[in-house]
Amino acid sequence: KRQGFPEVIFGEGKTPSQILDISRAILAKNENILVTRVDKEKAEIIKKELPFFTYHEIAQLLFYKTIEETVPMKGYIAIVCAGTSDMRVAEEAALTAEAFGVEVRRFYDVGVAGIHRLLANIEEIQKATVSVVIAGMEGALPSVVGGLVSHPIIAVPTSIGYGANFQGLSALLTMLNSCASGISVVNIDNGFGGAYNAVTIHRIANQQI
Amino acid sequence: KRQGFPEVIFGEGKTPSQILDISRAILAKNENILVTRVDKEKAEIIKKELPFFTYHEIAQLLFYKTIEETVPMKGYIAIVCAGTSDMRVAEEAALTAEAFGVEVRRFYDVGVAGIHRLLANIEEIQKATVSVVIAGMEGALPSVVGGLVSHPIIAVPTSIGYGANFQGLSALLTMLNSCASGISVVNIDNGFGGAYNAVTIHRIANQQI
Amino acid sequence: KRQGFPEVIFGEGKTPSQILDISRAILAKNENILVTRVDKEKAEIIKKELPFFTYHEIAQLLFYKTIEETVPMKGYIAIVCAGTSDMRVAEEAALTAEAFGVEVRRFYDVGVAGIHRLLANIEEIQKATVSVVIAGMEGALPSVVGGLVSHPIIAVPTSIGYGANFQGLSALLTMLNSCASGISVVNIDNGFGGAYNAVTIHRIANQQI
Amino acid sequence: KRQGFPEVIFGEGKTPSQILDISRAILAKNENILVTRVDKEKAEIIKKELPFFTYHEIAQLLFYKTIEETVPMKGYIAIVCAGTSDMRVAEEAALTAEAFGVEVRRFYDVGVAGIHRLLANIEEIQKATVSVVIAGMEGALPSVVGGLVSHPIIAVPTSIGYGANFQGLSALLTMLNSCASGISVVNIDNGFGGAYNAVTIHRIANQQI
Amino acid sequence: KRQGFPEVIFGEGKTPSQILDISRAILAKNENILVTRVDKEKAEIIKKELPFFTYHEIAQLLFYKTIEETVPMKGYIAIVCAGTSDMRVAEEAALTAEAFGVEVRRFYDVGVAGIHRLLANIEEIQKATVSVVIAGMEGALPSVVGGLVSHPIIAVPTSIGYGANFQGLSALLTMLNSCASGISVVNIDNGFGGAYNAVTIHRIANQQI
Amino acid sequence: KRQGFPEVIFGEGKTPSQILDISRAILAKNENILVTRVDKEKAEIIKKELPFFTYHEIAQLLFYKTIEETVPMKGYIAIVCAGTSDMRVAEEAALTAEAFGVEVRRFYDVGVAGIHRLLANIEEIQKATVSVVIAGMEGALPSVVGGLVSHPIIAVPTSIGYGANFQGLSALLTMLNSCASGISVVNIDNGFGGAYNAVTIHRIANQQI
Amino acid sequence: KRQGFPEVIFGEGKTPSQILDISRAILAKNENILVTRVDKEKAEIIKKELPFFTYHEIAQLLFYKTIEETVPMKGYIAIVCAGTSDMRVAEEAALTAEAFGVEVRRFYDVGVAGIHRLLANIEEIQKATVSVVIAGMEGALPSVVGGLVSHPIIAVPTSIGYGANFQGLSALLTMLNSCASGISVVNIDNGFGGAYNAVTIHRIANQQI
Amino acid sequence: KRQGFPEVIFGEGKTPSQILDISRAILAKNENILVTRVDKEKAEIIKKELPFFTYHEIAQLLFYKTIEETVPMKGYIAIVCAGTSDMRVAEEAALTAEAFGVEVRRFYDVGVAGIHRLLANIEEIQKATVSVVIAGMEGALPSVVGGLVSHPIIAVPTSIGYGANFQGLSALLTMLNSCASGISVVNIDNGFGGAYNAVTIHRIANQQI
Ligand SMILES: Nc1ncnc2c1ncn2[C@@H]1O[C@H](COP(=O)(O)O)[C@@H](O)[C@H]1O
Ligand SMILES: Nc1ncnc2c1ncn2[C@@H]1O[C@H](COP(=O)(O)O)[C@@H](O)[C@H]1O
Ligand SMILES: Nc1ncnc2c1ncn2[C@@H]1O[C@H](COP(=O)(O)O)[C@@H](O)[C@H]1O
Ligand SMILES: Nc1ncnc2c1ncn2[C@@H]1O[C@H](COP(=O)(O)O)[C@@H](O)[C@H]1O
Ligand SMILES: [Mg+2]
Ligand SMILES: [Mg+2]
Ligand SMILES: [Mg+2]
Ligand SMILES: [Mg+2]
Ligand SMILES: [Mg+2]
Ligand SMILES: [Mg+2]
Ligand SMILES: [Mg+2]
Ligand SMILES: [Mg+2]
Repeated sequence: KRQGFPEVIFGEGKTPSQILDISRAILAKNENILVTRVDKEKAEIIKKELPFFTYHEIAQLLFYKTIEETVPMKGYIAIVCAGTSDMRVAEEAALTAEAFGVEVRRFYDVGVAGIHRLLANIEEIQKATVSVVIAGMEGALPSVVGGLVSHPIIAVPTSIGYGANFQGLSALLTMLNSCASGISVVNIDNGFGGAYNAVTIHRIANQQI
Repeated sequence: KRQGFPEVIFGEGKTPSQILDISRAILAKNENILVTRVDKEKAEIIKKELPFFTYHEIAQLLFYKTIEETVPMKGYIAIVCAGTSDMRVAEEAALTAEAFGVEVRRFYDVGVAGIHRLLANIEEIQKATVSVVIAGMEGALPSVVGGLVSHPIIAVPTSIGYGANFQGLSALLTMLNSCASGISVVNIDNGFGGAYNAVTIHRIANQQI
Repeated sequence: KRQGFPEVIFGEGKTPSQILDISRAILAKNENILVTRVDKEKAEIIKKELPFFTYHEIAQLLFYKTIEETVPMKGYIAIVCAGTSDMRVAEEAALTAEAFGVEVRRFYDVGVAGIHRLLANIEEIQKATVSVVIAGMEGALPSVVGGLVSHPIIAVPTSIGYGANFQGLSALLTMLNSCASGISVVNIDNGFGGAYNAVTIHRIANQQI
Repeated sequence: KRQGFPEVIFGEGKTPSQILDISRAILAKNENILVTRVDKEKAEIIKKELPFFTYHEIAQLLFYKTIEETVPMKGYIAIVCAGTSDMRVAEEAALTAEAFGVEVRRFYDVGVAGIHRLLANIEEIQKATVSVVIAGMEGALPSVVGGLVSHPIIAVPTSIGYGANFQGLSALLTMLNSCASGISVVNIDNGFGGAYNAVTIHRIANQQI
Repeated sequence: KRQGFPEVIFGEGKTPSQILDISRAILAKNENILVTRVDKEKAEIIKKELPFFTYHEIAQLLFYKTIEETVPMKGYIAIVCAGTSDMRVAEEAALTAEAFGVEVRRFYDVGVAGIHRLLANIEEIQKATVSVVIAGMEGALPSVVGGLVSHPIIAVPTSIGYGANFQGLSALLTMLNSCASGISVVNIDNGFGGAYNAVTIHRIANQQI
Repeated sequence: KRQGFPEVIFGEGKTPSQILDISRAILAKNENILVTRVDKEKAEIIKKELPFFTYHEIAQLLFYKTIEETVPMKGYIAIVCAGTSDMRVAEEAALTAEAFGVEVRRFYDVGVAGIHRLLANIEEIQKATVSVVIAGMEGALPSVVGGLVSHPIIAVPTSIGYGANFQGLSALLTMLNSCASGISVVNIDNGFGGAYNAVTIHRIANQQI
Repeated sequence: KRQGFPEVIFGEGKTPSQILDISRAILAKNENILVTRVDKEKAEIIKKELPFFTYHEIAQLLFYKTIEETVPMKGYIAIVCAGTSDMRVAEEAALTAEAFGVEVRRFYDVGVAGIHRLLANIEEIQKATVSVVIAGMEGALPSVVGGLVSHPIIAVPTSIGYGANFQGLSALLTMLNSCASGISVVNIDNGFGGAYNAVTIHRIANQQI
Repeated sequence: KRQGFPEVIFGEGKTPSQILDISRAILAKNENILVTRVDKEKAEIIKKELPFFTYHEIAQLLFYKTIEETVPMKGYIAIVCAGTSDMRVAEEAALTAEAFGVEVRRFYDVGVAGIHRLLANIEEIQKATVSVVIAGMEGALPSVVGGLVSHPIIAVPTSIGYGANFQGLSALLTMLNSCASGISVVNIDNGFGGAYNAVTIHRIANQQI
């Protein structure tokens, strides 16, 4: 019933052979496969056995698309983040959404310390169905975006930073306490989860109830 | 453009006269008004001046509806919680959603320690556009609901509990770490925010993009 | 040598009679007196004995100016905060700076969830020698102001908020992790300290080295 | 008096030669030996000297059974966990219980996000004397199992997860705050302790008082 | 099937009229009733309506026994604690166990700072089926008892203490890290839970499997 | 307008080729370049391509000065720290300030456990426009310096220490709670930020308003 | 054997009648009695029954001396603290030591933000056998005193402060991380414990081994 | 004046050449030298240059004794710990005390989970001037020893343990909250500090005041 959505394997803490076993079971059901959190070394072992997988190193994802979605979706999701350091998480989100057949627009250089770059892009962001807003360090970006757009925002804190950042705790608390409405939060570095929530909402936007 | 949505005042930490001033400014714009986190004493002072407000004591909300939504929305939001102790937050969520013109269905006796009551209601929950799932203590309910339904879930941790609950921290962490997909989280006790996010999604479900 | 700066008494945890004793000792030296963190009840007891004190209830300050600064300072300090809830801290800062003979400009309705109000005021903020930027909840305001102005910013987190705010911890961490440069931070709710640092800097700006 | 129970050595932080010394002292008393938390490298060094040890790599245990329990026990302990990532801890528990001469039944694919797999096994779980329920991430499994069975549950949080999981803190707090009765908790990743408690209870069930 | 066990109501956060409603529903089923965490004021209101309840002020419990257990159990549970300050929790545990029809022996003056009093009682403690060991401050008592007896120990940390005790966190961590085996832990101040677990084990000891 | 100030690149988490790209873009604008947090290995790769960079290993900085400041500034900044262990952070601060064209005086052996060394230097410290005071372990140095000088102090906690130091948390809290006035704080190990704030203040001292 | 040392009762959390019972039991053994942490109201109830007690309101102590120490001790203990806010704890320490028959010298206005007052007193402090150094807020005083004297220092953190002080955690961590040697630490606000440790050391200094 | 006490170098975070420089400076003053926290590799480099150093690998100490103490001290210090895992810290303490010319007696197998081994040694422990009691995991040993002996106890928490031990936090809190009197605490793993405090006290015991 999930119309061509991939089966997802959480790769962290799994051995290549465990990932291969699960992948083959999914293949047998003729489903697309997305494997998250796979480092390069693991990916290479897996690709030796199942070479049709595409590996995205920066996002640490393996993907294999065997069937197309039945009905293409309209509209797009905005993936918004501040700079180069959050890109691993941002790309995990962006490629996840694309693996689920959703169009994505990336806004990757729009941190709050240079608010004008964000303002220059805000109209295109606003036209998205939903935004995934990713930020490390102080994690203030979702609050600012949330004040400027009216669609739902999935905020993803990252562990980027040091010292009193406490591995992403700072960004996490910032997002949970946002004074802008319409923001909900997923786990630190959970780009996949941010995208998955956005896809779920985007699908609703494509299905008149 | 928000088609009859109320203006919202966060009542906590505001004096009755501050709330009255802001309310009158909103009235002048002919908008509906929702005031959250107003205790009984404050509510009575405010109602003496602006008696058309309805006060919901359990949810600590004041509401005044002066205009109707232009287009009624279809479908409903599920408000799901475990027992009597989380009701303050659950009703803050339910009445907020209703104030925004959205139909709500309440599922209030479905905690994970008695999973069969949840299973008995799961079909009606699944038919909602989105669920707001509220839980204190260990906060496990969103994970279980998330595994049973496919629509987006906004998880609201509550501060109900004692000891190693640390005023809701336990439930908050549980929800952020959920192994079910499609769950995003708002601040502890933020019933308003849970509902606001759900309304934002529900509105999309009513607007083909 | 401090050219008319008041002596400051930290009123919290002191009895009225302790405050009276210290005040009289300062009076004997013919100095201005600033007492911080004095609640109304205490203030009234003290004013019965020393009626020349002015009490600022919202800021919880007592002030008595007996001598003028020798050389008036040029320029002003900007006190920037988001809304009504942070006003206790903002006024503690503003009145402290004024007690030290420094001109203050207040920008009190400029939170990040409504960035345009901030942008509308940014030129006047930028012309200040230094800004004291006060924020509770997610505490993102200093980052945004810091990206827009080039003078030093003293960031003051407040304990306003609830749940995962943890009595101001969230705002504190946000400010310490700011990705904008030129921001330094004082203790939660320390409006006095924020202003004192700003005054120290402002004085330098008035004294060519 | 402990009727054939092994002596247990906590291998973490001990050198192979320390473990060998202690093992030889136990052998001299003609007791079974269980060594926990031994990595592969250490195990190999030890096995060169004492080759009768069996090494269980996934559980990181060395075991040597030289004498049989005097009276075999009836009934079994259920070891319940969610998925593949918690298996190191689950196997530490299962093999510990077996080393103590207790029959174990494993239920390893029954996480709360797929509640039906748990329900499909619940009758066999319920027939156990006691369950050891192991979970990482949000740690909700013991609450759900606790609501379905009436025997004692020893809950073992694991450090599996990332971000706001804080190395198992999330699962630990969840379990301590469970709203199901009959659940007590041991340290994060303490599969041994979970099993030891269960064995102690199981032994009582085999000894009419 | 629970052979005369009471239904339990968690009284904290419930109004007297909510407790009365639930109590009447239980009465209709002809069950014993235990209400925990009821302060004196609430208890008096409830007793005006349902005067057959017995109120235990120190333990904050209401109890009504309408039917006897079908089969009386043999043996006893030891309730062990250090001094007078933990008595609220110790009595919650002791009276809960008694409400479930289990004999209890109290050992209330046996803290680790005076180890000889504990040693003087250890034989009688050892003869219990299971011990509930309650301690605040540093919470070391379960470790010492655990090293001296071979039956299962349910450790209950209390919030008694100040400063670096952090409302019971210190005792909780101590118990989770105990180097004695056979100890499992419940939430801070959860005397009810400690006893409930012990009763569950005690029942097994009375039912040959 | 920043009169010869360098552009700053935060090197941590950036690849050499990312740093090279950004550096070349800055070169094209004819600006000085400061790269912070570059380890030796990265620095060598970068220097192979852009050999005019000077690398400061202890401070982990790369610097290239292509243009001089238009107007040299008068006065100096004091960089104060306790001993050899905090030198990485102290040198990050000192070299940053120098890269911004500001004279620096170093006071590196003046910890609070040997107060007389500090007192021996205090006059020269006092003559600075502003001090950057760096301390790990208990972080008490800024409080003592703050009580002895009247200019602004930027306090930089470091992560030096072990155990209850919690990676710099101890020093951070100490500085935020300082009972001396005129102290504001930046993130743990943020020598760059400490210096940047000081430079911003120093520039004001050189520009009569 | 403790030559006239009082029996000590920890008054916090005990009822007046419990304190009276324990006091009478001690009287029967003809021992001096010290009761700590008794508020005024409780003290008055107790004094009605046992009027020979002396009550020290600021230190919250009751004391009754019925027998003299057999051998008076030589030398004194220094009680060192910063200001008026820590006086409750300082007096608890000072009066405890005196109750144990030890001479005390008080140094109460010597905080690190005004180091010269400390230096002015340091010779007299150094001549003590041992110092109890009490500090709230940043808690830096023991480090500075520890660097100046060579005898043992018992450091007592207090909960005085606000915000990032976290009820004394800041001062506690500071003291545990002191870079001066010869400092050991007791619980937050534990003036009694600080003095008790000092007395134990002082007694050794009076007993040639 | 310190009568033959060694100069101490804290080796952690210092390079071999820094340690060599400081050592040579101390040699020039003809003092004994103790270097703490030196790993084997560093020690070997240093010993190549200064071969008279003795290296204690388990304690990670380098020591060189060039002059004898003027007056040998009487009595001994007890170093008490639970088992093999805390030995690194215990030996750091024991060898430090010996380097300061104090006799040490080691009691290394006396954990609280086997209280009888402690009781078997308690008389010899009691005869010490002062005990250094070292414990990881739950850290309960100082409380039990403190209840059995009347001399001062310096408690040293270690980071030994896992999970809810939080790198020694559990043992630290236990010791700070001890209900036995006469216990003061140093930083986690600070064997040196524990011994240094004990030596300071022991010296007093040898010097009639
Ligand atoms: N209970 C609540 N919790 C969190 N945010 C709220 C709550 N109620 C209202 N708000 C938000 O607070 C905003 C109004 O804040 P204020 O301007 O301070 O009244 C609303 O637009 C909402 O976004
Ligand atoms: N003091 C207590 N602490 C923790 N849980 C309790 C306590 N008292 C009762 N309970 C649990 O709460 C359940 C009843 O909760 P409720 O339905 O909210 O009254 C009981 O079945 C017990 O499992
Ligand atoms: N060591 C540092 N710590 C914190 N912030 C830094 C550091 N070095 C540079 N920055 C800031 O990072 C900015 C550049 O970030 P980026 O664009 O990611 O290279 C600079 O303008 C500085 O504000
Ligand atoms: N293992 C240790 N832990 C804590 N402090 C130590 C340790 N070893 C030495 N010290 C202290 O560090 C001081 C020397 O520090 P430093 O000048 O950095 O070598 C000594 O005088 C001791 O007070
Ligand atoms: Mg919005
Ligand atoms: Mg789902
Ligand atoms: Mg700026
Ligand atoms: Mg159950
Ligand atoms: Mg045992
Ligand atoms: Mg100063
Ligand atoms: Mg000293
Ligand atoms: Mg003792």
